Amino acid sequence: MATEAEVIDGKAVAAAVRQELKEQVAQLKARYEVTPGLAVVLVGARKDSATYVRMKRKACEEIGVASFGCDLPEDTTQEELITRIREFNARRDVHGVLVQLPVPKHIDERAVLDAIDPQKDVDGLHPLNVAALSMGRAAQGAKRLAWAFDELDFHVPPTPQGCVELLDRSGVQIAGKRAVVLGRSNLVGIPTAMLLMKRDATVTIVHSRSTDVEEAVRAADIVVAAVGKAELVKGDWIKPGAVVIDVGINSVDDATKKAGYRMVGDVDFAAAKQRASKITPVPGGVGPMTVAMLMRNTVSGAARAAAAAGGSGGGAASAAAAASANGTAGAKRPAGDMDVGSASKVPSV
Amino acid sequence: MATEAEVIDGKAVAAAVRQELKEQVAQLKARYEVTPGLAVVLVGARKDSATYVRMKRKACEEIGVASFGCDLPEDTTQEELITRIREFNARRDVHGVLVQLPVPKHIDERAVLDAIDPQKDVDGLHPLNVAALSMGRAAQGAKRLAWAFDELDFHVPPTPQGCVELLDRSGVQIAGKRAVVLGRSNLVGIPTAMLLMKRDATVTIVHSRSTDVEEAVRAADIVVAAVGKAELVKGDWIKPGAVVIDVGINSVDDATKKAGYRMVGDVDFAAAKQRASKITPVPGGVGPMTVAMLMRNTVSGAARAAAAAGGSGGGAASAAAAASANGTAGAKRPAGDMDVGSASKVPSV
Repeated sequence: MATEAEVIDGKAVAAAVRQELKEQVAQLKARYEVTPGLAVVLVGARKDSATYVRMKRKACEEIGVASFGCDLPEDTTQEELITRIREFNARRDVHGVLVQLPVPKHIDERAVLDAIDPQKDVDGLHPLNVAALSMGRAAQGAKRLAWAFDELDFHVPPTPQGCVELLDRSGVQIAGKRAVVLGRSNLVGIPTAMLLMKRDATVTIVHSRSTDVEEAVRAADIVVAAVGKAELVKGDWIKPGAVVIDVGINSVDDATKKAGYRMVGDVDFAAAKQRASKITPVPGGVGPMTVAMLMRNTVSGAARAAAAAGGSGGGAASAAAAASANGTAGAKRPAGDMDVGSASKVPSV
Repeated sequence: MATEAEVIDGKAVAAAVRQELKEQVAQLKARYEVTPGLAVVLVGARKDSATYVRMKRKACEEIGVASFGCDLPEDTTQEELITRIREFNARRDVHGVLVQLPVPKHIDERAVLDAIDPQKDVDGLHPLNVAALSMGRAAQGAKRLAWAFDELDFHVPPTPQGCVELLDRSGVQIAGKRAVVLGRSNLVGIPTAMLLMKRDATVTIVHSRSTDVEEAVRAADIVVAAVGKAELVKGDWIKPGAVVIDVGINSVDDATKKAGYRMVGDVDFAAAKQRASKITPVPGGVGPMTVAMLMRNTVSGAARAAAAAGGSGGGAASAAAAASANGTAGAKRPAGDMDVGSASKVPSV
């Protein structure tokens, strides 16, 4: 408590990741003559969505990923949208397909996400990717997962991946630690909890119906807040020395700002900083990582596709190696037992 | 601590469920002229597997479900096995298909499970069922899930379902309680944690790499142990008044027994009974529920198929009503918010 927390600079980490990806893209081109491609589909004219789409296209440009835009009017039918998705699914120069959420109300989001080829589902929201994360399906027939992101053979949602990547690159040990995840959304809370569990943390998930949020946070070495409630987590809830990853982005009124508001996270940053050992700011923490991890999914997908197609450089292993040659050591870990007991001991009735 | 825990009689609860299912089967026959059918595929001659298969076929007989056996030799190829699964997938008189696990080593379990029609996957291990549990996909286009098992439109694995059913039928409130799940297997630990979370418990998952198992158990109102380690959970870890569901079945040497061993759970039953308010015994606790829940999945699957086929009685709603007419009130609950914050507040970058 004597010293302030180190502020984790998400912008700097994301920039480093993008630089690594840029080199990997160059290697993929050299080795396989493949340029990773990402299709970003936007339906309607939401301002926030348009901003996010622009950020994604800009990131593509920076690292050498081909970006395929597809802006559709608000009144696009579900059928039309799915037809466009299927066109991108079929293209060999497109390795990632994402539909910016939310889609207009007359479109069934689930039907849209289900239509994306799971191998191109760089947002990791297709049921087969969700199941793979839950089941810990191993890459390339391996029995155990190393859970190094660029060695997985499925897509993990970018924001949860960004949270774990920030921990890794900040030198935070996850295994054996107590983690609490606030929020149980399909986009962030549940996949983040799954990832931390796969990485051997003891994970508690709290949510709107939890009666003991404070107690759960107080016990945690790692706090991931993803509830979308401004400064819900008070500074004095944070265990001294804990690491805080704040996924929330909330606007609160602030007369001292020209805009009349400012952005804050789900954690009371100023107070938590007095107790945590490391903490992400809002903005500039998890936010920039999301786009970087989306880029990584796209590049990894292209590498897997290149390997599967044979390419000029050999099989899957060499493509994975090519794609991960510049990966961080922090993201790697040895494979380990995933369960306390062997399956044969738990009744398989 | 003054009084001993109530012992939850899994055999009696399972018998009551089977009786209800028997009546539902009769109603399905009367209304749709449909007899639910379950195909149980056994590869090889493992004695324990043969016993489990026999129990399942016997349960079918008791409640009026048609049972289709398929016993294959140990050296059956993966291709042959998958061919048999596809035959059952195609049959209109078969509503449930399960392959008794484990399969022989030369067969890829995952490929086999993936081959089962998700709608007939009564063990709930197909990726689409795993994803549906994780994502909380609502039945029949509903936006929120009630999580009454016989109203879901996908299959939840029987053992986790049995754990929650035992809690429901013992009058245990799950919402708002702290639950700990010991074990993170795909068969039991993870799906049980998911179910308890969907039912609004605050859930902590502990496992072999957890450094604080005792502390996590001490904090829990509901303890589900599924690690396959004899009496790992000590009696004095149990919070006074907590409810203990013991999924483990372990044999320990016991010279006083004729067989030279006895079966115990993952919890020290005698000691835990002095502190818990309710506790399941081993054997006779969760074990019998697994088969009963498998039967329920089969009957529910038949009801959904009958409704989808039109039948003589109307649409899905009436089939569900027919199938659940005798369901317990305890298993129902009103729909509620699934997340702390709305999706729009968590960054959808």
